[in-house]
Amino acid sequence: MLVIAEKINGTRKLVNKAIMERDVAFIQNLARSQVDAGADYLDINAGTLPEREPDDIVWLINIVQEVVDKPLCLDSANPEALLAGLAATKQPPIINSISGEENRLRDVLPVVAKHGLKTLALAIDSNGIPESCEGRMAIIRRLFEETRKLGVPDENMYVDPLVMSVATAPDACTITLDTMRKIKAEFPEAHLTGGLSNISFGLPGRTLINRAFLTLAVNAGLDSAIMDPTDRGLMETLYATNAVLAIDAFCGAYSRAFRKGIIGTKPPSKVPAAV
Amino acid sequence: MLVIAEKINGTRKLVNKAIMERDVAFIQNLARSQVDAGADYLDINAGTLPEREPDDIVWLINIVQEVVDKPLCLDSANPEALLAGLAATKQPPIINSISGEENRLRDVLPVVAKHGLKTLALAIDSNGIPESCEGRMAIIRRLFEETRKLGVPDENMYVDPLVMSVATAPDACTITLDTMRKIKAEFPEAHLTGGLSNISFGLPGRTLINRAFLTLAVNAGLDSAIMDPTDRGLMETLYATNAVLAIDAFCGAYSRAFRKGIIGTKPPSKVPAAV
Repeated sequence: MLVIAEKINGTRKLVNKAIMERDVAFIQNLARSQVDAGADYLDINAGTLPEREPDDIVWLINIVQEVVDKPLCLDSANPEALLAGLAATKQPPIINSISGEENRLRDVLPVVAKHGLKTLALAIDSNGIPESCEGRMAIIRRLFEETRKLGVPDENMYVDPLVMSVATAPDACTITLDTMRKIKAEFPEAHLTGGLSNISFGLPGRTLINRAFLTLAVNAGLDSAIMDPTDRGLMETLYATNAVLAIDAFCGAYSRAFRKGIIGTKPPSKVPAAV
Repeated sequence: MLVIAEKINGTRKLVNKAIMERDVAFIQNLARSQVDAGADYLDINAGTLPEREPDDIVWLINIVQEVVDKPLCLDSANPEALLAGLAATKQPPIINSISGEENRLRDVLPVVAKHGLKTLALAIDSNGIPESCEGRMAIIRRLFEETRKLGVPDENMYVDPLVMSVATAPDACTITLDTMRKIKAEFPEAHLTGGLSNISFGLPGRTLINRAFLTLAVNAGLDSAIMDPTDRGLMETLYATNAVLAIDAFCGAYSRAFRKGIIGTKPPSKVPAAV
């Protein structure tokens, strides 16, 4: 399971403040704590106005790369910011993201294709997220037509079927799990990914809902997630799920994580803080 | 989900001591704390030598019924203990259990049939637990032949496919989930149940493993479980799983449990204590 750590995101209030004030220590702490907790990639989203976003994302990338040596996931719809960011990264990043939206296909996909990058691919278009599994598959099939046309190998695709909140759509989880299974069946070389936390939007104790969803999603083939690795309970769920499903056969990784104190000792139920 | 609380079990050291010393307060506290935590049934297992088991189980039943008004699950392979217990219960109990073992079919099944009781039915015979799904289904099919012959309605059957530890058998969980799905397909009126904790035998942080298994088992149709309702993290997993799978549509029960402080506020990660 590839853990893409979500917390360096300028749409979060305190991260935005840190970007504006060029608070190096704040961002570097976020980078270090997420890597220490088990992040494989760090998502980098400046989330600022288009004219300053290239500078901001490069600043983020540079200070993050000073303190951790994990690859990054460049999170922007702005091709200038992506290209500036790409030039600043030491290791090939994942691009976050392409989708069925025309501007993403026009502006972002060529960057992905030209540089042979991995990319997140979202089941959304200009009409929003289709409610049904079939609606999402229609977007995903069109995305693969486009990426294959430009020579992006299927294994570079990290497909996110997206998920709505179960607070308002009771079948939100089921539809997303069904879509995951369909994607695996039709595009077996592609990876499955997803932001976990949308499922719990509007509910109390969101991490509890996210954990149950994580277990079911891994069972449906999820092999990558955009998540908060410093949410200890969520990481415990991930290790335990891999153990029961024999993705971690004989529970070696689970037992090691336990011995190292990564899981199992501190209270895991805290709701993630604002950043 | 029917929660059958597991802690009043004389094979546990401190419970055995309480039975031997007729420690009423200890047992009544176990009964109350499990009901407060959400138990629907209380399992009652004296676990003592056959000659004293009828007296012990009746003592347990009487003192438990003094303080809680939940129905009981009478846990014994001894027909005398079961009949004595049955006479002492105020509400119809579940019988724990019948199986493919000859003595259970000969001694326990007639009690179940004659009194029109619900019963746990275990996929084990005198050769032990079959490794494969098909081996377990063979026992379960034979059990249904016997119970149907004696007029036990399928909806009174709480079938436990049993689970081995993933520490030693990597496909333990998968086999059990597959067996659950087969049971639901062949015997749609029957219920699915199971002790959760065998899956984590030999591993550290067992409750973490049990939680992941609970989520997957509910997804496979589990509608009853023998578990520790005072394991707050396990109950959080149950409420959250029911919410994401829309068994609890629009998350009403989840939100109420959160408001009542049953889930979500205290650290849930504690490993269950000895009793």
